Amino acid sequence: MEFVGKHILTVDQMDREGIEVLFDVADQMVPYATRRMTTRVLEGAVLSNMFFEPSTRTRVSFGSAFNLLGGHVQETTGIESSSLAKGESLHDTARVLSGYSDVVVMRHPDAGSVAEFAEASRVPVINGGDGANEHPSQALLDLYTIRRELAAQSRDVDGLRIALMGDLKYGRAVHSLLKLLTLFDRVEVHLVSPPDLPAPPELVEGLKAAKHVVAEHHEMAGGIDHVDIVYVTRTQVERYESSAEADRYRGLFRLNQAIYTEHCEPHTVIMHPLPRDSSDAAQELDVDLNQNPNLAIFRQTDNGVVVRMALFALVLDVVDYVHEDARPVRWYTDKRTPVRHRST
Amino acid sequence: MEFVGKHILTVDQMDREGIEVLFDVADQMVPYATRRMTTRVLEGAVLSNMFFEPSTRTRVSFGSAFNLLGGHVQETTGIESSSLAKGESLHDTARVLSGYSDVVVMRHPDAGSVAEFAEASRVPVINGGDGANEHPSQALLDLYTIRRELAAQSRDVDGLRIALMGDLKYGRAVHSLLKLLTLFDRVEVHLVSPPDLPAPPELVEGLKAAKHVVAEHHEMAGGIDHVDIVYVTRTQVERYESSAEADRYRGLFRLNQAIYTEHCEPHTVIMHPLPRDSSDAAQELDVDLNQNPNLAIFRQTDNGVVVRMALFALVLDVVDYVHEDARPVRWYTDKRTPVRHRST
Amino acid sequence: MEFVGKHILTVDQMDREGIEVLFDVADQMVPYATRRMTTRVLEGAVLSNMFFEPSTRTRVSFGSAFNLLGGHVQETTGIESSSLAKGESLHDTARVLSGYSDVVVMRHPDAGSVAEFAEASRVPVINGGDGANEHPSQALLDLYTIRRELAAQSRDVDGLRIALMGDLKYGRAVHSLLKLLTLFDRVEVHLVSPPDLPAPPELVEGLKAAKHVVAEHHEMAGGIDHVDIVYVTRTQVERYESSAEADRYRGLFRLNQAIYTEHCEPHTVIMHPLPRDSSDAAQELDVDLNQNPNLAIFRQTDNGVVVRMALFALVLDVVDYVHEDARPVRWYTDKRTPVRHRST
Repeated sequence: MEFVGKHILTVDQMDREGIEVLFDVADQMVPYATRRMTTRVLEGAVLSNMFFEPSTRTRVSFGSAFNLLGGHVQETTGIESSSLAKGESLHDTARVLSGYSDVVVMRHPDAGSVAEFAEASRVPVINGGDGANEHPSQALLDLYTIRRELAAQSRDVDGLRIALMGDLKYGRAVHSLLKLLTLFDRVEVHLVSPPDLPAPPELVEGLKAAKHVVAEHHEMAGGIDHVDIVYVTRTQVERYESSAEADRYRGLFRLNQAIYTEHCEPHTVIMHPLPRDSSDAAQELDVDLNQNPNLAIFRQTDNGVVVRMALFALVLDVVDYVHEDARPVRWYTDKRTPVRHRST
Repeated sequence: MEFVGKHILTVDQMDREGIEVLFDVADQMVPYATRRMTTRVLEGAVLSNMFFEPSTRTRVSFGSAFNLLGGHVQETTGIESSSLAKGESLHDTARVLSGYSDVVVMRHPDAGSVAEFAEASRVPVINGGDGANEHPSQALLDLYTIRRELAAQSRDVDGLRIALMGDLKYGRAVHSLLKLLTLFDRVEVHLVSPPDLPAPPELVEGLKAAKHVVAEHHEMAGGIDHVDIVYVTRTQVERYESSAEADRYRGLFRLNQAIYTEHCEPHTVIMHPLPRDSSDAAQELDVDLNQNPNLAIFRQTDNGVVVRMALFALVLDVVDYVHEDARPVRWYTDKRTPVRHRST
Repeated sequence: MEFVGKHILTVDQMDREGIEVLFDVADQMVPYATRRMTTRVLEGAVLSNMFFEPSTRTRVSFGSAFNLLGGHVQETTGIESSSLAKGESLHDTARVLSGYSDVVVMRHPDAGSVAEFAEASRVPVINGGDGANEHPSQALLDLYTIRRELAAQSRDVDGLRIALMGDLKYGRAVHSLLKLLTLFDRVEVHLVSPPDLPAPPELVEGLKAAKHVVAEHHEMAGGIDHVDIVYVTRTQVERYESSAEADRYRGLFRLNQAIYTEHCEPHTVIMHPLPRDSSDAAQELDVDLNQNPNLAIFRQTDNGVVVRMALFALVLDVVDYVHEDARPVRWYTDKRTPVRHRST
């Protein structure tokens, strides 16, 4: 696939070669994201960061990624503060705002709205999440994390064994990740969910068409026993008929250190799209895992910055210039030790 | 008129010479706004972009214009998040915030409030709209657009034939534009409005005092037949007594391609202050005009950036330095073809 | 005390030597804050400016201070637009956001929350106000102002005579300032408050333990007669039982020019943490003082920028680099005359 000047709207655009290019560029961004080096390759460029739904992590991650490449960020947040509220069409908003910026990131509650916006835009648009539809940069950072975690064991995504656990019916992050896994070889996928919340059949078919091994489970035991990655998602309590039934599932899919020790391999990496609900009632990923070096959830968000920097660099075609005037960072960064990878 | 260090509060400040200086500088900003060149002339400067009323286009246009000159932007939006809500006077807010920034752009719901703020400010203040009173940068970008559109026909604003159509009683953009037109010679102004919504008599008198030809119309036919520019504004439905009466006006002043073809000259340029209400009930400017090369509404918003860059450059007295360290833009800009001007 | 890489959470961290270092660096920042010079020492760095409570002055002051050092600012405002609303713990928010930025400023309605956030952060955190608990940068800018105002009289903070007037029971700015004063010698403190709203006994004890002279007053007369500084705070009307009683106090502690002339020494400096409530009912600091050259309230807010620049420069360890590539400012700054100090 081609990145230069393209909109990034869905993981369906991605092919294996595109993924490799993206992740290679993401690797090149690490010295900048970890503040060992600084670059001003996009000095003078403007990102229009439009979040018509609340978001802290995705919004700031995109914004910081652009700042780390030297660019300025103009933000618009909240539907009420926008011209859309005055009856303006997405087409008009796109024609206007694309005249103000060099690239747009957009989150919107309506599925398909970002693609509609992109059609009228005069600059590349990156989908920051359009309702239940797509959130491609999340899936890409998840896959990039899997690749880096496996690389620490001198392995590749080909041959990956992964368990996805929780509500697999509604989580868009999981759906996009399952699509991306079809681009790789010999993957073993364990789908661990309540019977009522299975992964969509067409995604399961896609995995099988890619000749992957797919196993469906309704209990943790067995599902997470022999995998490299456990990817945990929120159990969407509000969809159950009674609180009692919901509680049964909650207990079933709550991963904590005791369950991890009993069931997982010593190198199994734990992932989660975040935010993790740490209220007492939820705790799908117990805080007693915080000291577990295989808990990769904050490495995931760190990786989000480098993947988003790579998307900007590729779409705006500045990869070759990033390093040209790179300079060492002189300010204090000692506390910013890379989140440690598990010892191998 | 003098720009350096001045507040830009009203079009009444402008004289013909000032307009010429401003537009000449705006022309110089085009390579930067269109991302052929980049400059860091205002690197280190801070714009305080204060919008106490919702705005996307004006806020981002000013912010991007400042970014394109190399400066940083600090935003304050919403009256509730400000110290004004704690009983602080505009005087105090101005004294404080002018200490934090190099220039202020302010939008406020109350007429006169921006001028009151400016009086206490220690840095130049640009009015981004104060209620029903003034929105000078909108009028200036409208006039700049008229000038550029006519220049594409090797003509000048002197001798302009223009129709202003819709609610002419309440639209502040139209009022300010009518004032600016008095600075030019031999203008023919067609005021097309419902009988109840005429342009204010003192503005009509002003046009006549400038020896302009002024004709008032209550129907489109005749009003838009022999003009260079049709400037369409919103029909403010809510002011009519009955929905039926409002609907009569709506139909009357809805411009679409069929009406354009029947009535307008082949080179007549269509303008609108935006946002255009594209809901079915409104459509004062039909979407079937989107392919018409004479639809200038997105060239208007593009011009807003260069006019606002010019205002910053003049007020902060850096016009001579803008080009000093100009460098070519290296990132992808191919999709950003200038919105095409109608072929002549 | 050590600044490099440290969180700035409370004035209790400060010692006399740290104060001296901070204020010396703040003095070095004056040419940048007053726009005589510009520096890009933090070019490429990102401040995460998180305000979970409304604020204009503190938020923009921190943001502009960071911009003036060359850095970018990513803002998050309002509790509702944050992941905290989705059940995420402060620990998780801190782990994530510290990966996006080089330093965090945080305001939060809950006492202790900023310290909790800091514990999980991988970058330094500066407390921008945590409920009724602490607002250390306000106390530091107040003390810095006192030092500069006295320096204009060739005097030092040692030997200071100060009156603090108004509601001394609840104002966190006053409490923090009283703590900082214990680091100095031979201070004379006049506490002027309604009988029901005295300064907390433990703070009074602290002052006495530092061998300061402490006098408590219930009327202005006597309290403000022989001091170098009158520091006025809001009379918190809503705490009184009846409006009539509140009005009695209001009259008692409303400083205006007539009272100033009658009671104060000719060089007595007037301070206030701002915002000053200028509604007719409040007026604890009358607008007729605006022409009094000893009214230092806007010098205070100007000083806030240099003190915050100094905090950033110290915590991020770039003090030695600030001046390295300093360049003169070329844009218009003539209106930005330093707010005049009283003639001595």
